[in-house]
Amino acid sequence: MKKSIVVSTQPTKFSALAFKEDFEKSIKKVAELGFDGVELAVRNPKDLKANDVINIIKVNNLEVPAIGTGQAYGEEGLGFSDPDEVIRKMAVERINDQIVFASNFNAQVIIGLIRGKIEESINRIEAEEWTIDCLKKCTEFAKEYNIQLTLEPVNRYESNFINTLNEGIEFIKRVGASNLGLLADTFHMNIEEVSIYGSIIQAKNYITHVHFADSNRWAPGCGHIDFKKVIETLKKIDYQGYVSAEILPLPDPDSCARLTVETLNKLNIN
Amino acid sequence: MKKSIVVSTQPTKFSALAFKEDFEKSIKKVAELGFDGVELAVRNPKDLKANDVINIIKVNNLEVPAIGTGQAYGEEGLGFSDPDEVIRKMAVERINDQIVFASNFNAQVIIGLIRGKIEESINRIEAEEWTIDCLKKCTEFAKEYNIQLTLEPVNRYESNFINTLNEGIEFIKRVGASNLGLLADTFHMNIEEVSIYGSIIQAKNYITHVHFADSNRWAPGCGHIDFKKVIETLKKIDYQGYVSAEILPLPDPDSCARLTVETLNKLNIN
Repeated sequence: MKKSIVVSTQPTKFSALAFKEDFEKSIKKVAELGFDGVELAVRNPKDLKANDVINIIKVNNLEVPAIGTGQAYGEEGLGFSDPDEVIRKMAVERINDQIVFASNFNAQVIIGLIRGKIEESINRIEAEEWTIDCLKKCTEFAKEYNIQLTLEPVNRYESNFINTLNEGIEFIKRVGASNLGLLADTFHMNIEEVSIYGSIIQAKNYITHVHFADSNRWAPGCGHIDFKKVIETLKKIDYQGYVSAEILPLPDPDSCARLTVETLNKLNIN
Repeated sequence: MKKSIVVSTQPTKFSALAFKEDFEKSIKKVAELGFDGVELAVRNPKDLKANDVINIIKVNNLEVPAIGTGQAYGEEGLGFSDPDEVIRKMAVERINDQIVFASNFNAQVIIGLIRGKIEESINRIEAEEWTIDCLKKCTEFAKEYNIQLTLEPVNRYESNFINTLNEGIEFIKRVGASNLGLLADTFHMNIEEVSIYGSIIQAKNYITHVHFADSNRWAPGCGHIDFKKVIETLKKIDYQGYVSAEILPLPDPDSCARLTVETLNKLNIN
């Protein structure tokens, strides 16, 4: 397994990002600390100077395992389950732009909060169909770029559907695309899974990306999740991908990144 | 330790008769299952036929360890940290009504969601002062009735202040009233505490009530919290009060109550 940490390419409201102020400085720090890669949180790739971003990451010899896309929902309200067809179309277009951007790094594109929340007045089955339709369009487009999408179950407070790994797998099956995988996030799993370890085993054929955050969303080692056992379980299913820290910048951005590396090195993730 | 489960009196949304029948049936069920008490969730005691409620509970030989008060925030927006003085006054009056109602059972009155959330535009220190002022007024009033209040830390998604037991203790100290204790809720603790057990030990002089819900808010035993160890820890601090199941009605209300009793009996809470 390799280790990465989330860095936002632009200032953002979303708090579970270790770094968000000075992009270049953050990337340098990530490399110095010994991470193998950096997961980018991008609101709109069209607002970025893509070549600058690519260059900064290349110079620092980092990989980009995944692109986070949730800010487009959090800050612009774009979502796959929105009753408004125009909003759904914009959400699909945004993810397609992310796919094009991700192809610079061969990164996975994360489908997390961009699925939105199903509004109370909306028929659940219909909203699920809209979401599946959007996922079909995006996976189809992603195939042209050889890009994989990864669907992230999030806890009940952040979305009201696809909360557990199993629910994620059900959606992946309904979409039926070979380039749609599953993202296992330990913070969300601590709230939603009956067994964190059992659910990883059960999802072994689907997991393509992993987020590490402790039970309180601080760096691994700062809460009560048993990461030793999580890592053993990931080894058991022969997971070869990245574990990426999507954590709060607490007690401060530098410390949380350093604590992450220290914990992961101690636990021998390689 | 004794065991109870939360039953909502669901005041205004149901016709009085239907409500009364449902309530009576629920209370009967709770007694039959072997609970020692029932924790009542009350929106507004003035909407209740108090004598009927008292009678139903008496007939079924149950105690009432605590009254939950959060519906007044959730459904009416009454909160201790509201910038509007009139809203705060209404929140205090509502809690005072709960205190009078609670005195029928010698029940504790829970200060959970009624503290509200601190709005983004509001100065945090000022909102905390408003909350402390409300708590001072309510504890003062409660003394006349010999009633104890109990402050419940809740997870970050439900309120943006008083999330950990330690933060609760800080507030209790700032209020400085002898009849304000702390409520430890395992579901919230699983998200907020660095160590569930360590935080109980640290809060031993403050805990006056305990909520049991598993990590997914189902009945104890349905998630991954180690209730054996939680109970051992509560015994270690010589906790003599109630453990009260505040859980989702899943897979259905009867089953979740039955599962709770089964788990608690297996774990020998007495």
